[in-house]
Amino acid sequence: MRKEKNGMKSVDFRSDTVTFPTQEMRNAMMNAKVGDDVYGDDPTVIELENLAAKMLGKEAGLFVSSGTMGNLLSIWAHTNRGEEIITGWHNHIIVHEQAGIAQICQVMPHVICHENDFIYPEDIEKNIRPDDIHEPKTTLVSLENALSNGLVIPLDIMKANYEMAKKYGLKVHLDGARIFNAATSLKCDVKDIAQYTDSVTFCLSKGLAAPYGSVIVGNKEFIERARRHRKMIGGGTRQAGMMAACGLVALKKMTKRLKEDHANAKYIASELAKLDGICVDVEKVQINMVFFKFDKKKFNDKKFVELCKTNNLLINPSNDCEYRVVTHYWIEKKDCDLLIKTIKSCLKNKK
Amino acid sequence: MRKEKNGMKSVDFRSDTVTFPTQEMRNAMMNAKVGDDVYGDDPTVIELENLAAKMLGKEAGLFVSSGTMGNLLSIWAHTNRGEEIITGWHNHIIVHEQAGIAQICQVMPHVICHENDFIYPEDIEKNIRPDDIHEPKTTLVSLENALSNGLVIPLDIMKANYEMAKKYGLKVHLDGARIFNAATSLKCDVKDIAQYTDSVTFCLSKGLAAPYGSVIVGNKEFIERARRHRKMIGGGTRQAGMMAACGLVALKKMTKRLKEDHANAKYIASELAKLDGICVDVEKVQINMVFFKFDKKKFNDKKFVELCKTNNLLINPSNDCEYRVVTHYWIEKKDCDLLIKTIKSCLKNKK
Amino acid sequence: MRKEKNGMKSVDFRSDTVTFPTQEMRNAMMNAKVGDDVYGDDPTVIELENLAAKMLGKEAGLFVSSGTMGNLLSIWAHTNRGEEIITGWHNHIIVHEQAGIAQICQVMPHVICHENDFIYPEDIEKNIRPDDIHEPKTTLVSLENALSNGLVIPLDIMKANYEMAKKYGLKVHLDGARIFNAATSLKCDVKDIAQYTDSVTFCLSKGLAAPYGSVIVGNKEFIERARRHRKMIGGGTRQAGMMAACGLVALKKMTKRLKEDHANAKYIASELAKLDGICVDVEKVQINMVFFKFDKKKFNDKKFVELCKTNNLLINPSNDCEYRVVTHYWIEKKDCDLLIKTIKSCLKNKK
Amino acid sequence: MRKEKNGMKSVDFRSDTVTFPTQEMRNAMMNAKVGDDVYGDDPTVIELENLAAKMLGKEAGLFVSSGTMGNLLSIWAHTNRGEEIITGWHNHIIVHEQAGIAQICQVMPHVICHENDFIYPEDIEKNIRPDDIHEPKTTLVSLENALSNGLVIPLDIMKANYEMAKKYGLKVHLDGARIFNAATSLKCDVKDIAQYTDSVTFCLSKGLAAPYGSVIVGNKEFIERARRHRKMIGGGTRQAGMMAACGLVALKKMTKRLKEDHANAKYIASELAKLDGICVDVEKVQINMVFFKFDKKKFNDKKFVELCKTNNLLINPSNDCEYRVVTHYWIEKKDCDLLIKTIKSCLKNKK
Repeated sequence: MRKEKNGMKSVDFRSDTVTFPTQEMRNAMMNAKVGDDVYGDDPTVIELENLAAKMLGKEAGLFVSSGTMGNLLSIWAHTNRGEEIITGWHNHIIVHEQAGIAQICQVMPHVICHENDFIYPEDIEKNIRPDDIHEPKTTLVSLENALSNGLVIPLDIMKANYEMAKKYGLKVHLDGARIFNAATSLKCDVKDIAQYTDSVTFCLSKGLAAPYGSVIVGNKEFIERARRHRKMIGGGTRQAGMMAACGLVALKKMTKRLKEDHANAKYIASELAKLDGICVDVEKVQINMVFFKFDKKKFNDKKFVELCKTNNLLINPSNDCEYRVVTHYWIEKKDCDLLIKTIKSCLKNKK
Repeated sequence: MRKEKNGMKSVDFRSDTVTFPTQEMRNAMMNAKVGDDVYGDDPTVIELENLAAKMLGKEAGLFVSSGTMGNLLSIWAHTNRGEEIITGWHNHIIVHEQAGIAQICQVMPHVICHENDFIYPEDIEKNIRPDDIHEPKTTLVSLENALSNGLVIPLDIMKANYEMAKKYGLKVHLDGARIFNAATSLKCDVKDIAQYTDSVTFCLSKGLAAPYGSVIVGNKEFIERARRHRKMIGGGTRQAGMMAACGLVALKKMTKRLKEDHANAKYIASELAKLDGICVDVEKVQINMVFFKFDKKKFNDKKFVELCKTNNLLINPSNDCEYRVVTHYWIEKKDCDLLIKTIKSCLKNKK
Repeated sequence: MRKEKNGMKSVDFRSDTVTFPTQEMRNAMMNAKVGDDVYGDDPTVIELENLAAKMLGKEAGLFVSSGTMGNLLSIWAHTNRGEEIITGWHNHIIVHEQAGIAQICQVMPHVICHENDFIYPEDIEKNIRPDDIHEPKTTLVSLENALSNGLVIPLDIMKANYEMAKKYGLKVHLDGARIFNAATSLKCDVKDIAQYTDSVTFCLSKGLAAPYGSVIVGNKEFIERARRHRKMIGGGTRQAGMMAACGLVALKKMTKRLKEDHANAKYIASELAKLDGICVDVEKVQINMVFFKFDKKKFNDKKFVELCKTNNLLINPSNDCEYRVVTHYWIEKKDCDLLIKTIKSCLKNKK
Repeated sequence: MRKEKNGMKSVDFRSDTVTFPTQEMRNAMMNAKVGDDVYGDDPTVIELENLAAKMLGKEAGLFVSSGTMGNLLSIWAHTNRGEEIITGWHNHIIVHEQAGIAQICQVMPHVICHENDFIYPEDIEKNIRPDDIHEPKTTLVSLENALSNGLVIPLDIMKANYEMAKKYGLKVHLDGARIFNAATSLKCDVKDIAQYTDSVTFCLSKGLAAPYGSVIVGNKEFIERARRHRKMIGGGTRQAGMMAACGLVALKKMTKRLKEDHANAKYIASELAKLDGICVDVEKVQINMVFFKFDKKKFNDKKFVELCKTNNLLINPSNDCEYRVVTHYWIEKKDCDLLIKTIKSCLKNKK
């Protein structure tokens, strides 16, 4: 039984960010060899950065506090103020990182608006600004994989986008917060995705369950610029090896078990699809996220979140009537069954 | 004969920004009373700012170097860095002012993508960000009227947008570079448009033919903030009354004759519409701009700009195969006839 | 024997930032109760922030990654871009935080240049900019205590500066990275110092030996602004309770033992003062830092750092011929003796 | 009689920025050949920029709205955000341009504090930051000549500073708002001063009496960057030739007569020096500015500005008890005599 030992009292479907560290991580942290990372003295941080770079096929890595910091430092290192970057309408850097890219990087987003949030090579080509004193200079394409809508961009689209970007001399950054989920879904190595980028941010927290941190990878020059900017915003820390130790467990162990979370998500989706009164697209469950809606005629869902809570299930409020549930290390099959059972009972009672 | 006296040698359809000052403007400039405007001592600048404010129904005005400066100072005065503004996909502040709003104002544009570039109240309501630590705060709607595609937003849409913005506590800025054209088209006073805004930028150059400058209007507090920011970027000037003198002629005289330019534009469009081989939408000619395309089967337009030049006509290269011609004070009916004749001859010769 | 158990192999006099966490900290981290701090769910973080606020006599606290982040967020939360802050020539925010306050906060430093880096009330009064469209607005005084030169600002000067600032409506921020050292030296409570500020940053790492983190304290509104900015730069983290757990040990235990480090520093200084060939001002040893120079005639110190290393002592290179040694938890009296002995032997061998 | 014709009604000693344009300038403006300068079509602007570049011995020039804009664009074009620039404590960019270099250029000033505001080579060498992840990178030295205290930096110091800057790869910008006054004082060509810089801003208004504008000069690449930034802040204007026409008169004619203003200033100073009750340093009158104080025992100067006004003389209030009077084109010898007479009468009446 995982939960009792580590203090997660509820079944928490709100996000994979809520994952508590595993006992193995706590042990690793406890025994970590450390040093002053600002002096470059922390062996565990160095090990983590090197392992991350190797796994993603890049020259170098940098351990940062969060995915938001990783994206900010990456875009900052790739661009100059006053430039424009092509990105997606619902990308995390647009919707969930305040307006950091405008305020700190001082770049303008040029958003592509497709329903599924995919970006295609023709979007890139068509939206590069001409060389003109009136217009910003387009210098970067910032993609996301997996997307926060739970979809995964296939490798051939990654490749085509990368080639188009290179044709015009643009850099490509990938917000790969859940790149290990994407690779699991694509049945490929993360390296196969990362090859079509100049830099990647990925999270050690979220599905990999570390309590803290993300890593950005890219070439050495890029990482040095990012390291300097990290220092400016105070993201350089001292004996960071204690947190890096958890990250090493995340990278070595947790990356291999994500298919369980995906299977659980698919299980939930396929069970819900059988119910009259639930709208869910099983095909779109590609990672650890399920999105569904209630048929308002069958169930008035105003109290749904509350009803879940009485069953010790945590769910976020709906967004535009749509609920998202996220599976992760601390969600077992029986927890999924409890969720399904709760939903069934809601539909039955038709409140 | 207007042209000879003032040195415009070609018939210049490229834009209304190319307009030379009129002789009356030159005389006004010559005799202008001036003072040091940084000390608040320039009577002609004060007169211009007051007249502009009065004509647009606002408390105060500020004389600035250009429409770009006017928009920049307005958005800067309305927002704090890190906020988000709702605006249109093709608005001048997005496409033609480098990325000044990102670099200098440090705000993020949230662009609405309708084909005709109109923004509707539901676009505003739907795109206001929720109050959440992850998301930027939406504080401003930045509109444009007339639009750079030559369309004019009707008053009822202006009103509805303004009311929706106010419902959510948002400010409304209008890039009214050609607001006098818009008012002429709507057969209303500029005040009728400006009432649905918190601030307006409009240009004294362009259709009003002044050699220099724009004015922003709004309430006193807004103008004081903008005045301070103008000083920071070095837009505060000394004996600015010489340029303001031209602006006064523009405001008093030139605003009343824009219907001539509109009539000329409509004349060109309706004549072109009669031709086999030209695609033009006469309905969309609402101000002083005509957009048209050649039917490639009838005329390969690769040399069109050049052919015009041999007839002493200046035309900008096409954008996505579409040409724009702009009428203004220095374009008379006979110049329009020359253009039409040139196009006819192109089609005839089928080069 | 402290060292062996935690892996510090050398006697490290370079800084107190190099301090490894204690065994008690490792245990606390291991057993920490955690939650998702972005959701406000982490009980250990909340405990740390509340304890810090209470100890410094402020309304609220915010756990941040580093002192640099703490200062950046504080100055950012107190000011608007384009304002000016009064600070000292050698303050950490000027010399050791890149130009973060210019690039990120976009404020201009107005530095006071006294030899000892003290700032006095008359410096504040004299250097406030007049209300004039040409000049930046002065809004903040940023002080440091203890100073990085090892001096401590007496309470009466803190008070007088604070009162002068308030007279002109200025905010006062204190970079109190080593405020517990300052309080130890002044034989007062940290609260007695913090009362003369609007906000304080202090470090859990450095002398307090935590592996990670700083805390900023101030009123609730200030902390909420800083929290939002922390999120923008990616300083918001997930299960931050693991690091906060070490911070709690630092606050509860380590703050009480700093007098040992000060005694060790004074011991080193007074022993060195007895030597012919060493220049050291014992009076200026007020915290855990000793500054000294060699008389070049007695000892050519080019190889001093290297000689120390052969004795397993780590020392930073001199700055303008001056060496700084820093005492901390992992430096015991016998380590000080080893340093003194090494220096004596250098002078004897006169290399 | 110059004044009557152009509307200056008072004898205005406040500054040389108050200078009205001459009749010749008004005529030049009236008849200027113009074009759309954003399209690069304005022949008068091109002529001005080329002449300015040639006179200062640089590759290219850019016509800008003001000295503040010139300095802002120059520093912006020379630096990247987050860098540090060495400059003087009282330089115009620090004291009189809001905090534009912090807010817009996002660079940190590293100010040198000598009493006379001179900067010497050793100041540069000593204050370059080391290459360290904690510290900003020093990239520019920004000087001023003539200084706003009326002093002129000799050529040998200019040369030594330039050579020191080059030794460390730093750029040198000169705020030469009054560089023609400096050259007049040094009895050299402006080119002789400008050779020790990478860029210069100088004003066409101020002593040269144009109503508007400054020019920056430097190499072509620098000017292209500045031109692009000028567009971002809206400093690009349309038929700017009208203002440039005045600038051409200023450059060709007015630069040759500054010695008259200097002679008038020296005349005032030497007459005042004879008076008991006035403190003035005649040696420091090197350009068109006189600084003097009253001996408080001889004359309580509280009403001095007012008394001048009754004699139709405009004087700015004192700064720290010191008055500054500035001579210029519209100040003739008899005006100086009126000022001297007024001061004498004040001392006599001992109010």
